[in-house]
Amino acid sequence: MKDAATSLGIGLAFVVVILANVLEGGNPTALLLLPPLLLVFGTTVLVTIAGGTMADAKQAVVSLKTAFLGGPQSCAEVVPTVVGLAERARREGLLSLEDSVRELDDEFLAKGVTLAIDGTDPDEVREILEAEVSAAKKAHKQSAKFYADAGAYAPTIGIIGTVMGLVHVLENLSDPEQLGHLIAAAFVATLWGVTSANVLFLPIGNRLKRLGELETTRMELIVEGVAAIQSGANPRVIAQKLGSLVPASEQAPALDAA
Amino acid sequence: MKDAATSLGIGLAFVVVILANVLEGGNPTALLLLPPLLLVFGTTVLVTIAGGTMADAKQAVVSLKTAFLGGPQSCAEVVPTVVGLAERARREGLLSLEDSVRELDDEFLAKGVTLAIDGTDPDEVREILEAEVSAAKKAHKQSAKFYADAGAYAPTIGIIGTVMGLVHVLENLSDPEQLGHLIAAAFVATLWGVTSANVLFLPIGNRLKRLGELETTRMELIVEGVAAIQSGANPRVIAQKLGSLVPASEQAPALDAA
Amino acid sequence: MKDAATSLGIGLAFVVVILANVLEGGNPTALLLLPPLLLVFGTTVLVTIAGGTMADAKQAVVSLKTAFLGGPQSCAEVVPTVVGLAERARREGLLSLEDSVRELDDEFLAKGVTLAIDGTDPDEVREILEAEVSAAKKAHKQSAKFYADAGAYAPTIGIIGTVMGLVHVLENLSDPEQLGHLIAAAFVATLWGVTSANVLFLPIGNRLKRLGELETTRMELIVEGVAAIQSGANPRVIAQKLGSLVPASEQAPALDAA
Amino acid sequence: MKDAATSLGIGLAFVVVILANVLEGGNPTALLLLPPLLLVFGTTVLVTIAGGTMADAKQAVVSLKTAFLGGPQSCAEVVPTVVGLAERARREGLLSLEDSVRELDDEFLAKGVTLAIDGTDPDEVREILEAEVSAAKKAHKQSAKFYADAGAYAPTIGIIGTVMGLVHVLENLSDPEQLGHLIAAAFVATLWGVTSANVLFLPIGNRLKRLGELETTRMELIVEGVAAIQSGANPRVIAQKLGSLVPASEQAPALDAA
Amino acid sequence: MKDAATSLGIGLAFVVVILANVLEGGNPTALLLLPPLLLVFGTTVLVTIAGGTMADAKQAVVSLKTAFLGGPQSCAEVVPTVVGLAERARREGLLSLEDSVRELDDEFLAKGVTLAIDGTDPDEVREILEAEVSAAKKAHKQSAKFYADAGAYAPTIGIIGTVMGLVHVLENLSDPEQLGHLIAAAFVATLWGVTSANVLFLPIGNRLKRLGELETTRMELIVEGVAAIQSGANPRVIAQKLGSLVPASEQAPALDAA
Repeated sequence: MKDAATSLGIGLAFVVVILANVLEGGNPTALLLLPPLLLVFGTTVLVTIAGGTMADAKQAVVSLKTAFLGGPQSCAEVVPTVVGLAERARREGLLSLEDSVRELDDEFLAKGVTLAIDGTDPDEVREILEAEVSAAKKAHKQSAKFYADAGAYAPTIGIIGTVMGLVHVLENLSDPEQLGHLIAAAFVATLWGVTSANVLFLPIGNRLKRLGELETTRMELIVEGVAAIQSGANPRVIAQKLGSLVPASEQAPALDAA
Repeated sequence: MKDAATSLGIGLAFVVVILANVLEGGNPTALLLLPPLLLVFGTTVLVTIAGGTMADAKQAVVSLKTAFLGGPQSCAEVVPTVVGLAERARREGLLSLEDSVRELDDEFLAKGVTLAIDGTDPDEVREILEAEVSAAKKAHKQSAKFYADAGAYAPTIGIIGTVMGLVHVLENLSDPEQLGHLIAAAFVATLWGVTSANVLFLPIGNRLKRLGELETTRMELIVEGVAAIQSGANPRVIAQKLGSLVPASEQAPALDAA
Repeated sequence: MKDAATSLGIGLAFVVVILANVLEGGNPTALLLLPPLLLVFGTTVLVTIAGGTMADAKQAVVSLKTAFLGGPQSCAEVVPTVVGLAERARREGLLSLEDSVRELDDEFLAKGVTLAIDGTDPDEVREILEAEVSAAKKAHKQSAKFYADAGAYAPTIGIIGTVMGLVHVLENLSDPEQLGHLIAAAFVATLWGVTSANVLFLPIGNRLKRLGELETTRMELIVEGVAAIQSGANPRVIAQKLGSLVPASEQAPALDAA
Repeated sequence: MKDAATSLGIGLAFVVVILANVLEGGNPTALLLLPPLLLVFGTTVLVTIAGGTMADAKQAVVSLKTAFLGGPQSCAEVVPTVVGLAERARREGLLSLEDSVRELDDEFLAKGVTLAIDGTDPDEVREILEAEVSAAKKAHKQSAKFYADAGAYAPTIGIIGTVMGLVHVLENLSDPEQLGHLIAAAFVATLWGVTSANVLFLPIGNRLKRLGELETTRMELIVEGVAAIQSGANPRVIAQKLGSLVPASEQAPALDAA
Repeated sequence: MKDAATSLGIGLAFVVVILANVLEGGNPTALLLLPPLLLVFGTTVLVTIAGGTMADAKQAVVSLKTAFLGGPQSCAEVVPTVVGLAERARREGLLSLEDSVRELDDEFLAKGVTLAIDGTDPDEVREILEAEVSAAKKAHKQSAKFYADAGAYAPTIGIIGTVMGLVHVLENLSDPEQLGHLIAAAFVATLWGVTSANVLFLPIGNRLKRLGELETTRMELIVEGVAAIQSGANPRVIAQKLGSLVPASEQAPALDAA
């Protein structure tokens, strides 16, 4: 399910920052200086990569697509699918699900049902599926951590640029005409450090963390669903049980207290 | 139950901030500049939205009503209701509760008792209700996190505005008459960043977190109550057990040690 | 047990701050300006209240007495009392404790022993007492959190005052005579923000958290004691077991390693 | 497996910082002042050592080699090895593995299989291996903590240098010619504090933490593998179970949601 | 076992700070001003005391000796002692250990073995010993927290001194000759705040936390050892099991991955 919160949010945030600069009489192009841009983006990405493995860095790049173009998959939609499978399994036996599996969009659900059809021991099935949930949880966490780390490095790396610039200025006080311009240039590094962190890295990190939470909630719901199908539980009870696992954000808003 | 802590607290806090400004001889209207207001509120809300999903953002808006106009529902009031149901169930049987359910204000309690009447297995009932508690916990956490995140972004976004303003000033040192005014305008962004975080976003986040805690305490009390009714426990023992789960803030103050 | 750490510590800390100011040639009364005092204390308390419920705020006020005039109740003293009760219960039966209960100072111990005398099931007794421990834990945490929150808000609210003051100064650079005085006044807000947080709010929050820890340790010791009495355990073993639960700070110092 | 993320990342990051300085017209050699370098690196390392034991410091030095020249060992490669052992054990009996053990590269796997061959009780084997996993986890954490601590100390120790420098400047305002140069020198301490933390200490700490996570994931996979071999489980099921424990970063990227 | 990491580390760190100051042409004695020293050390210690109880403060003072003159007790040395006891118990019976107990240096091991000899139930022995481990853990944590708290207060209290000094300066701008000197004096408070935190309080806190971890690891190893002796386990298996609990820092360095 596409969810435009991140692409819209980050895109419009940059527009607002530029607009505010223009409204104050500033010239946004004056902020596009190569040295601070190189310093802030280059160093931040490099030290973030240095804090993990090459595989982590690659996965973080791949997950960018998820953050901007992807979105949460519905939990609520899983419930009727599972209930349908449970009804058929009750009526026609577990093996009859072999046809249904082929039509399932969800790979994780398909894997679980296939394990059940193969006659794998229910405890074994749960263990295998939960190990996958746990591995997915760790992978999502790691990608989110990449951008959270970058968001923590960027402002201080901006400060490195500003202090280097100020040291340069202070060593060359002989040309007072240039002072204002040089100090301004020094501060642009801080500006890019703080902006890249708050308008880019940290929101991406938060988004990936949140999508990971929703994804694992969905996988946990499927684990319960497969276990219920395998145990031959009453489809009505399964619907009730899985329904109580669906996140509130997919139900009617339930937060208003009197 | 309406609880005015947030509406009063935040409202009066803004009054105090304005009053302090006036007492120092300042002019509060001089702080109402469009660029910093647009930058701080616009960017903060946009990057906070970017860190989640559209559904999260919608739920956060809905929960504003809860924060300002809602309040904690009483835990203590649940105890006599549950004890009354337990007494009737003991006297007239579980099925006799069907009439009582219709009169219950509390949806969650009604759902639990209905499951019990329907003859659902006690372990199953507990599992379904606990899944709802857990989903409610996550939903409350997510809404509180929205405002906590906004409170973390706002001051640094204010700094973005101030640094952009200072860069603009430093590039235009030729007009010393305007210097004071321009630097003042640059600092207004920091002012709004820090103020919006501390007087608006963070208190709302804390409030939603606290209401969520109290709500889940109440739901957990109901889970225990339904289990006790279903097990046919002695109403006197139920009263004692549920009573010990009521938060101290609803009992006589119990914090004074000698 | 009265423990003067907080009243003495905070009282003397204010004396030291004033003394250091006087020794540097400053005039402490110059710091008693109404606008920053109103801003820092007023806004901090108001936004802290806004982050919870009215009941939380009331309980936080009540707990001030505990922080300044109260102190930890002894854990070590509970051991002989419980051992005495266990001996009597072994000799004369559980019902014989009815007289002893009336002489107990400790309400929580009295409640536990009464439940045991009433013939409540041991698991039930433990569950009820542990629910009370958990409720007490949450209540202590909430009061400590109030002051920890206030300690987190205060410095940034001081910064609001200073930035407002500086904006005011920068808008009025025409009167250079007054500049020093006005900037000084602006910084007084930061001074009160940092001082109130570090010399008042944070120490009170830490104190309440610590007293809560000691109180719940003591309650947990009583839970074990009541369970041991009810199970008719050997008083010598009870003494040994409870003794190992007494915090090290009430025993001979055991931290020196060779 | 060698993984160049850290050596490349940190090396290139220093290049980028120097490049940015040169592009802005600065002279990087002007930053190589002995006093701030001595202060920042000397004090940071000394106080970090002071916060642990000599053995911790030695282990932190040893782990530098791992951070820069080492890398994560593959989890995925363990699976076929374990499955091979399981097949042989099923066909020829557990004792037949004695030959295979000698050819195993992995010491931990060899130890586990040896324990199994020796006829140690399965629960005992698991307990011994899990104790090793837990000890390895703690050791990795401790080394990572050394660099994380250094990264937390360094910027503030840089500030010590800058404030000492500024105090020195302010005491000697009589020579205005030297002012710029002296203030610049004072700021170099902050520069080295922030740079050493963000470009050196923190990335090393993050890297060691991550390698530790991957190493313990691998060890936990081996614990499961040895238990499965010992229980004589079906090799196909073992392959499926261990496969689900392999981290996503070693599988095809699985993060893209629709 | 004496471990000089802290005494050497902190001692040399102060030497390096002074050396760096001298190398920059500063005069370290100019930093020894009474008001900031009184303010920073006095207020920090007082508000830290205020955040706990008198008993906590006393224990924190006692633990200073441990931090500077003590060190970690060896875990590896415990293993052969326990194995020796286990062998004797197997050969000559548990009661034969009565002689061996008198020769044990370790009080905690002696207590455990005595409980075993007395015929206390194994579960009871484990419970008593684990309660002691838990109490020791809490005590170590509390002492470490004292210095961690002091390290968090000190820099902000230094800022209180600096802001008070600056307010004083700004109120007295009439004497420009004195300006530099007065501002320098104001910054000395920040200098002492940051230095005392990073070179004294925080390293002591970290050291105590680490010694506490190592001490509790050792105690947990003894708990396992006593349980193994009491169960009459095979000494060879005991050696293997306890060996896997010894921290990696006492074994050959095991962190280098290929």
